[in-house]
Amino acid sequence: MQTDLVAALDIGGTKIAGALVDDRGRILVRTQRATPAREDGETVMRAVEEVLAELTASPLWSRARAVGIGSAGPVDASAGTVSPVNVPGWRGFPLVARVRAVTGGLPVELIGDGAAITAAEHWQGAARGHDNALCMVVSTGVGGGLVLNGRLHPGPTGNAGHIGHISVDLDGDPCPCGARGCVERIASGPNIARRALEGGWRPGPGEDASAAAVAAAARAGDPVALASFERAAQALAAGIAATATLVEVDLAVVGGGVAKAGDVLFAPLRTALKDYATLSFVQRLTVAPAQMGTDAGLVGAAAAALTRRSDVTAV
Amino acid sequence: MQTDLVAALDIGGTKIAGALVDDRGRILVRTQRATPAREDGETVMRAVEEVLAELTASPLWSRARAVGIGSAGPVDASAGTVSPVNVPGWRGFPLVARVRAVTGGLPVELIGDGAAITAAEHWQGAARGHDNALCMVVSTGVGGGLVLNGRLHPGPTGNAGHIGHISVDLDGDPCPCGARGCVERIASGPNIARRALEGGWRPGPGEDASAAAVAAAARAGDPVALASFERAAQALAAGIAATATLVEVDLAVVGGGVAKAGDVLFAPLRTALKDYATLSFVQRLTVAPAQMGTDAGLVGAAAAALTRRSDVTAV
Repeated sequence: MQTDLVAALDIGGTKIAGALVDDRGRILVRTQRATPAREDGETVMRAVEEVLAELTASPLWSRARAVGIGSAGPVDASAGTVSPVNVPGWRGFPLVARVRAVTGGLPVELIGDGAAITAAEHWQGAARGHDNALCMVVSTGVGGGLVLNGRLHPGPTGNAGHIGHISVDLDGDPCPCGARGCVERIASGPNIARRALEGGWRPGPGEDASAAAVAAAARAGDPVALASFERAAQALAAGIAATATLVEVDLAVVGGGVAKAGDVLFAPLRTALKDYATLSFVQRLTVAPAQMGTDAGLVGAAAAALTRRSDVTAV
Repeated sequence: MQTDLVAALDIGGTKIAGALVDDRGRILVRTQRATPAREDGETVMRAVEEVLAELTASPLWSRARAVGIGSAGPVDASAGTVSPVNVPGWRGFPLVARVRAVTGGLPVELIGDGAAITAAEHWQGAARGHDNALCMVVSTGVGGGLVLNGRLHPGPTGNAGHIGHISVDLDGDPCPCGARGCVERIASGPNIARRALEGGWRPGPGEDASAAAVAAAARAGDPVALASFERAAQALAAGIAATATLVEVDLAVVGGGVAKAGDVLFAPLRTALKDYATLSFVQRLTVAPAQMGTDAGLVGAAAAALTRRSDVTAV
């Protein structure tokens, strides 16, 4: 018997990826376009339509039963619109209706990219088997998503889990979001590099002033580089502990470019977590590196579409 | 037709209250004992059993179908045990099994007191009709609970919503919980009074150095008193905004003794919320005073028992 498939879209500021995915998370057809992020909204939509045209042209398309979209945020799942920070041509753009129009009226499920990655880690990755987990991406920004009671918790608008913009330092440095002392303002890759530079660290010849270069310096014992990662770890620990204290997650999965620093990040993160996760019911909280690779967004979007379908079936 | 009832227990460091409650939240029978908080565990349990004996002696008892318990925390709903900070004789005390034993084997639902108050506000109070809300008690401590997707979210152990012990000032003052800069460490009644005293405020003749006295001074224009409430409001705002950013609540209900300060607290809280709740999907977040009175714990425990029963029925 041929199983049903879902179509998945992963929409970011750099690329728009699409796939047909089966109910075990296998990607059977895949396609991609660069995001014309600086163009007007219709030009960006055309790139999405080109991706979808390749999928609908596949002989497998007849088995597609729903479309899942994971998009750079903010999104508004209740309105079906997206306003990705890095795609200025899309502000309140009615992506769900537009995708439905070119996919023959299939049901369309929209979630933020943090929620999509979380759905993927929960289905196939480091959060498998965990009913309550936080999954994070620590990179140029800091994003995330939540699994609660065994299910993805995207929230009414699809944006839940935005741990990068909770304040852990209420008098701290202004964040571009308008608040102060956000986790992202302390722990993102660019902020790790900035803090190391301010402390006197310099990249080697031919090296960029990146978090990866700071991580290399930290591994070589550079105290300024180590201190910058420790401060990032402290902010991440405060944010993770806050999340666990609020909703009782027992696992935090950390991925993204900064997590590639490995023990340079994870060792001080585990130490700092003991300082902030103090109440009895959060002391079992553990931290694990992400397992999903670059397909996480597609697999997670597919998971969201499949979960929605099974909800509908169950009613 | 006579409707089913549930028994409710509200267990705190000062009193143990019990009631028979109908499916509309009306308290039909009520009883109470002082908590022998400094005695051994069996003595405390005897007080619970006396409360239950009065309930089981009621002619209405035959209609009781379940027992709901809201207890001072931490609790462990998965193990059925409680370890209230202010009742040292109970550490990992098997309250659920003991209550079941004296109530003829009725199903027993245990949640923390923050979750219980939240269930009450959601059922009958300020959070009615809100599918995603945070409810808080700002008093000697700061506690809370969450409603997500239209249902109480107690978490696996019944402790979710512990907003008092999330850090909003990661380098801040040590908190008795072991962390630093917790919301409670800045915003609780005793900390509002402490900060005012440190700033030079003094209570009037015959007045205690309480948050209520600081509130009275603030209403009279005392700048030190106003500043202490503003700092508390800032910490509450950072915590509420963090919660909304993480799980997408659109309402924060604030009760407890400190909330009785009224606009002295709520005006700077609403102002500070604009500083910290910055992302598009949390900008609609509102704050409201709690509506439930001293029966909130009993009504919330009853709600938890009723919800559990309807889950079972629905399966």
